[in-house]
Amino acid sequence: MPCLFSLAPVLSRCMLSWPGSGGGQRLHSMKAIEMKIIVIGASGDIGGVVCAELSERHDIIKVGRDSGDIHADIADPASIKAMYRKAGKVDAVISAVGSVHFGPLSEFTQEQFMLGLNNKVMGQVNVVLAGLSQLNDGGSFTLTSGVLDRDPIRMGAGAATANGALGGFVVGAAIEMPRGLRINVVSPGLLEVSVERYGAWFPGHVPVSSRHVGLAYAKSVEGAITGQVIIVE
Amino acid sequence: MPCLFSLAPVLSRCMLSWPGSGGGQRLHSMKAIEMKIIVIGASGDIGGVVCAELSERHDIIKVGRDSGDIHADIADPASIKAMYRKAGKVDAVISAVGSVHFGPLSEFTQEQFMLGLNNKVMGQVNVVLAGLSQLNDGGSFTLTSGVLDRDPIRMGAGAATANGALGGFVVGAAIEMPRGLRINVVSPGLLEVSVERYGAWFPGHVPVSSRHVGLAYAKSVEGAITGQVIIVE
Repeated sequence: MPCLFSLAPVLSRCMLSWPGSGGGQRLHSMKAIEMKIIVIGASGDIGGVVCAELSERHDIIKVGRDSGDIHADIADPASIKAMYRKAGKVDAVISAVGSVHFGPLSEFTQEQFMLGLNNKVMGQVNVVLAGLSQLNDGGSFTLTSGVLDRDPIRMGAGAATANGALGGFVVGAAIEMPRGLRINVVSPGLLEVSVERYGAWFPGHVPVSSRHVGLAYAKSVEGAITGQVIIVE
Repeated sequence: MPCLFSLAPVLSRCMLSWPGSGGGQRLHSMKAIEMKIIVIGASGDIGGVVCAELSERHDIIKVGRDSGDIHADIADPASIKAMYRKAGKVDAVISAVGSVHFGPLSEFTQEQFMLGLNNKVMGQVNVVLAGLSQLNDGGSFTLTSGVLDRDPIRMGAGAATANGALGGFVVGAAIEMPRGLRINVVSPGLLEVSVERYGAWFPGHVPVSSRHVGLAYAKSVEGAITGQVIIVE
């Protein structure tokens, strides 16, 4: 199996003759190269799914406010910078965190509304801004939004706003990424593992498969797309 | 022309026999009823287009920071509330304002990034939250975003984020509007009237017709749609 060249850091691409093909056909075999990946929010529902999908093939650095290999809080820019110093150079950063207030539209205060913009949006944006110099060439950022800006629920206006903001951010940021860096946001529906806790808030929503959610993050990290909202439904 | 009923506050619907049709066909004639409409940012490029489109048919209250019939600044929630007190009950509110920082992604500070979230997003959201009790039944909010979350430019990541946020907000808020209120956001490309000032930032963008931009606001105000991002391209 002659390995012609490597496309670091993601894949080794090999070309080989297909047995019995008479030598006229060739198969491109793609094998994942191990990456060093930060997963912020590794102990959450989504973070757990992400780690389950990627940990077999990659070196995962789990980050949480009070758990994991490194402790960090995306609400605190200094904490994000400290996380990158401790982790060293990495190939990918996955953020699966972000707080948002849920409440009836007519009762929303500015402070409640700003929680989503400050934490879920600015917090994840700060993970990107601080990480631009910390990722290896060709690395990727994968953020997390959610379903509520396309399939809304009562009390979800703050979340819908934050999700839409993150979708806009990756579109705007992707075209300015240096050194071949990429950025996407995964927008999953209600996870099947979250139904017990949150299902009553999402009447009629079809829970999404954990496996499919994990694959969405794999697509962003191991694939080549950028500037995309990766919808999982 | 027997006018069968009124659909306040927007339209009077009349049915009449079509001359020469033999009485078998009827035509529904729609005539706009005059509404009282607040236009925030009336002196801006978009506000001017909006007023040109709507002022012939409606009573416009022009609002600006330093100009117009009422002075108000969406950055200040108290100023928004004072605007509604001065205006009294209205049928529609159009917001065509919002500040955003433009700069290279790698140089964005948190403070610069938050300008769009605080001003263009939270400011316009506050216009809605404070206006929920100030609009007549069946009234409408029309906010303004922009093209950069679907057709990005360099230095536009903050604007793309704010635009996406506003798109998410109207989707989430529309389903919780009381008393038949509606909400949409108009997302225009670069206006032809703005090309001289901003065209160099938007290489290759086809300027959009002022007339089409005005019509988008008319569709939101005089039409019946809600929860929509009304794209003008």
